[in-house]
Amino acid sequence: MPLERKIRRIHISGSSPEIRVPFDELTLSNGEQLLLYVVGGEGGPSLPRRREGWVRRRRGKTLLECALAGEITEEMEFAAIRESHAVGEGMAFTPDLVLEEMRAGRAVIPANNCHPESEPMVIGKRFSVKVNANFGASAVVPDPQRELRKLELSLRHGADTVMDLSTGLADPAALRGAVLRASPVPVGTVPAYEALDRAGGDPSKLDWPAFRDTVLSQARQGVDYFTIHAGLTQALLPAAARRTLGIVSRGGSIMAARMMAADEENLAFAHFDELLEICHEYDVALSLGDGLRPGALCDACDEAQYGELREIGALSLRCREAGVQCFIEGPGHVPLDRVEENQRLEEELCHGAPFYTLGPLVTDIAPGQDHITSAIGGTLIAREGTAMLCYVTPAEHLALPGDQDVVDGLIAFRLAAHAADVARGHPFARERDDAMARARRDFRWHDQFALALDPEHAYEVWSRALPEGCAHEPAFCSMCGPRFCPIRLNRQLVKKYS
Amino acid sequence: MPLERKIRRIHISGSSPEIRVPFDELTLSNGEQLLLYVVGGEGGPSLPRRREGWVRRRRGKTLLECALAGEITEEMEFAAIRESHAVGEGMAFTPDLVLEEMRAGRAVIPANNCHPESEPMVIGKRFSVKVNANFGASAVVPDPQRELRKLELSLRHGADTVMDLSTGLADPAALRGAVLRASPVPVGTVPAYEALDRAGGDPSKLDWPAFRDTVLSQARQGVDYFTIHAGLTQALLPAAARRTLGIVSRGGSIMAARMMAADEENLAFAHFDELLEICHEYDVALSLGDGLRPGALCDACDEAQYGELREIGALSLRCREAGVQCFIEGPGHVPLDRVEENQRLEEELCHGAPFYTLGPLVTDIAPGQDHITSAIGGTLIAREGTAMLCYVTPAEHLALPGDQDVVDGLIAFRLAAHAADVARGHPFARERDDAMARARRDFRWHDQFALALDPEHAYEVWSRALPEGCAHEPAFCSMCGPRFCPIRLNRQLVKKYS
Repeated sequence: MPLERKIRRIHISGSSPEIRVPFDELTLSNGEQLLLYVVGGEGGPSLPRRREGWVRRRRGKTLLECALAGEITEEMEFAAIRESHAVGEGMAFTPDLVLEEMRAGRAVIPANNCHPESEPMVIGKRFSVKVNANFGASAVVPDPQRELRKLELSLRHGADTVMDLSTGLADPAALRGAVLRASPVPVGTVPAYEALDRAGGDPSKLDWPAFRDTVLSQARQGVDYFTIHAGLTQALLPAAARRTLGIVSRGGSIMAARMMAADEENLAFAHFDELLEICHEYDVALSLGDGLRPGALCDACDEAQYGELREIGALSLRCREAGVQCFIEGPGHVPLDRVEENQRLEEELCHGAPFYTLGPLVTDIAPGQDHITSAIGGTLIAREGTAMLCYVTPAEHLALPGDQDVVDGLIAFRLAAHAADVARGHPFARERDDAMARARRDFRWHDQFALALDPEHAYEVWSRALPEGCAHEPAFCSMCGPRFCPIRLNRQLVKKYS
Repeated sequence: MPLERKIRRIHISGSSPEIRVPFDELTLSNGEQLLLYVVGGEGGPSLPRRREGWVRRRRGKTLLECALAGEITEEMEFAAIRESHAVGEGMAFTPDLVLEEMRAGRAVIPANNCHPESEPMVIGKRFSVKVNANFGASAVVPDPQRELRKLELSLRHGADTVMDLSTGLADPAALRGAVLRASPVPVGTVPAYEALDRAGGDPSKLDWPAFRDTVLSQARQGVDYFTIHAGLTQALLPAAARRTLGIVSRGGSIMAARMMAADEENLAFAHFDELLEICHEYDVALSLGDGLRPGALCDACDEAQYGELREIGALSLRCREAGVQCFIEGPGHVPLDRVEENQRLEEELCHGAPFYTLGPLVTDIAPGQDHITSAIGGTLIAREGTAMLCYVTPAEHLALPGDQDVVDGLIAFRLAAHAADVARGHPFARERDDAMARARRDFRWHDQFALALDPEHAYEVWSRALPEGCAHEPAFCSMCGPRFCPIRLNRQLVKKYS
């Protein structure tokens, strides 16, 4: 018997017919219905350019400037409906709330004017926890098709944003363009990678014009957010040198190598205002990168990491003054007992800007399982308020992730984000858990698979272990066998005591 | 090139030549050495019966009675050396500390007099976090050989204790005997399973004599700890009936079914003193089972769960008075924001007895990935003081675990226990992380694999992605490629700034 899952794509429309927010409506076998958060345009291969008119009507104002002026944009309304699973009276997250959080610098909608295909979503502490998936070719595995397949897998498994981290490609713009045109979620990049490739891989040849041109060309293509390691200033390099693992951020190490080669201040720091001008023109959000994120427990929470965070906090105010949205990247490898302090300090030093962390990974000794070490730290920091988690795949520290790594990483992080949403009291998060509990109670196996984060996988594990010739939905599983099932006993219990 | 890992089995001897504690001495390529906690007797297939003389010389006194009398036994010294990786002056955990913690009821060494092959280990908040692995046949998969293979896998991947949870076997004693004779780690069971099988699967025919005979025969075989669901009293059944998922513990539901069928109090509760007599005679520890552990987030922390915990707390005092060691089983499905309260309440209501939890699982919606949902909750509760984590495999909620599930479950939980040890400031936990950080810094790839929780797996992920004809230990990996590796840059950084 095949996996049965009754899903219908529906749309909830906002105040104008252009605002049509997609959802998957899941119908369980007992008639219960749930709306699931999805992306995917209207379902076709060439995405509708829904935001073209919205951007045009704003006449050069950025989303942050609209928020500061108290103007609710289509993006804000779209994101509010998406968070609320509803429109009108029943909205738990109103467009006003989205606007207020953006105005306060506590929420971001990454949406480049030149990426009209993107479906707006909001990143912030007050909203559901988001998950980013990284992919990108490297010189060892320079295959653009392989990376486009990872985009598809990322979207199918619930990535809220993606980052194309390609390096060493002959034509990185071609892949990035293909990603942007196929992506209904915001796309981020680290421009330093391409800038270094343009400089022939030699950091000493990486100058400001090359860096600026890279940023500009990527902004024109439609990249929604840039990771810029501008907080890693020269003054912090001695602290980095004292570490066991020094700098493990690729972008950070490019900036550092250039600083050392030229004996000059960090390019992105020195030219930050010019970067802000480009970001303002295209409405690109800045993801202020932590070039000094700790790469090992022994380097966590040190002078280098927190010194950079202080610099980043100052930069976040300059973003705001320039009308450019920003969020803050965070660690990295952090022992469990210091995870919470990272969130607290980030909020304090960065004036409440959304935190976007890589894990944290709570031990160094599990290469091959770092989707788990990082999901542990990620769940905990998201409970404290982190707005978006960057997934880590099982290949981390070992290899470029393959297809299955992308899927495993995303499932682990969707799970982490959901567990944090539940703990944060997100109004819809528990609906799905509670529907699962009822499906378990009633032996509605196919409803359990339908409600699972990875239905195909759950179904496969279950069905391969069942005896042949079994009923469609047997009132037992291979764990306890048919003779004694505690869940079946509960029917008697309820009959007797209620 | 094959995986290289230089490991030598060594022993540290205590105050008598009979106390020989095994360790694996790992030598890295730069000469650094680490002792790794292992079990495995002296390495042969038939385990030495090391504890025979120790038990004989105690003349019927239990370990708890020795502790209460201030007498340090060989088991306490063995466990202290094992925790300390050392003997004499350098011990971070002295035999006195083990004795004091046992005397206070905060630590347990499960060690049946009839399981002389077991290597003593201590379970308690002050010591390293332990991991239990469950296996056991079911009527759907009634293959004892398969379960013995799982024992072997469990031992190889670091289980500190194992539980044989077989049901529906024609000859459960044969498998259990084989497990006991092959297991250097403590073996636990849930006697209610076999008792129900003896009653032909009909709870109404399960009477006290049948239950007692089962417990007695298992004690004689050498089972080190019994999960007994004595705290699930009749008075709690109405609260259980009000739940969505009622009772999900198999043992708990057996006791409940019998209570309902006979309209009598829980057998194990009613005859608790007689159970204690048997446990005293063989020195079996009691794992006071949570028959009302929540099976879904919506049933967590309710009247049923905490009401039972209160009963269990009272039973724990009776264990103590009878000279029988005990620890306390805990949840189950618990939302992340209520994990800590479970540890706090357990310590309060159960007078500091060690807590032994199943996860907790922090969401219900990830069947197929529940080793991750439970490792998240498990790490967090272990940070708060839980002494032992029961692993959960990816097959949980779906099927009887297979070999790979056992391995995946154990690795996830060794990782969780280690992350908690680090957070709890265990004196040796960080050594391994820090050695890994140095191996990463130096591109000592084979040292990284040697230090990993799952060396073979890490090596396989790494090596399959490397280009052919690569150097033995290339100074890059397939993630960033050879051109720009941040870790390589750090050598320049150190040269310049130090």
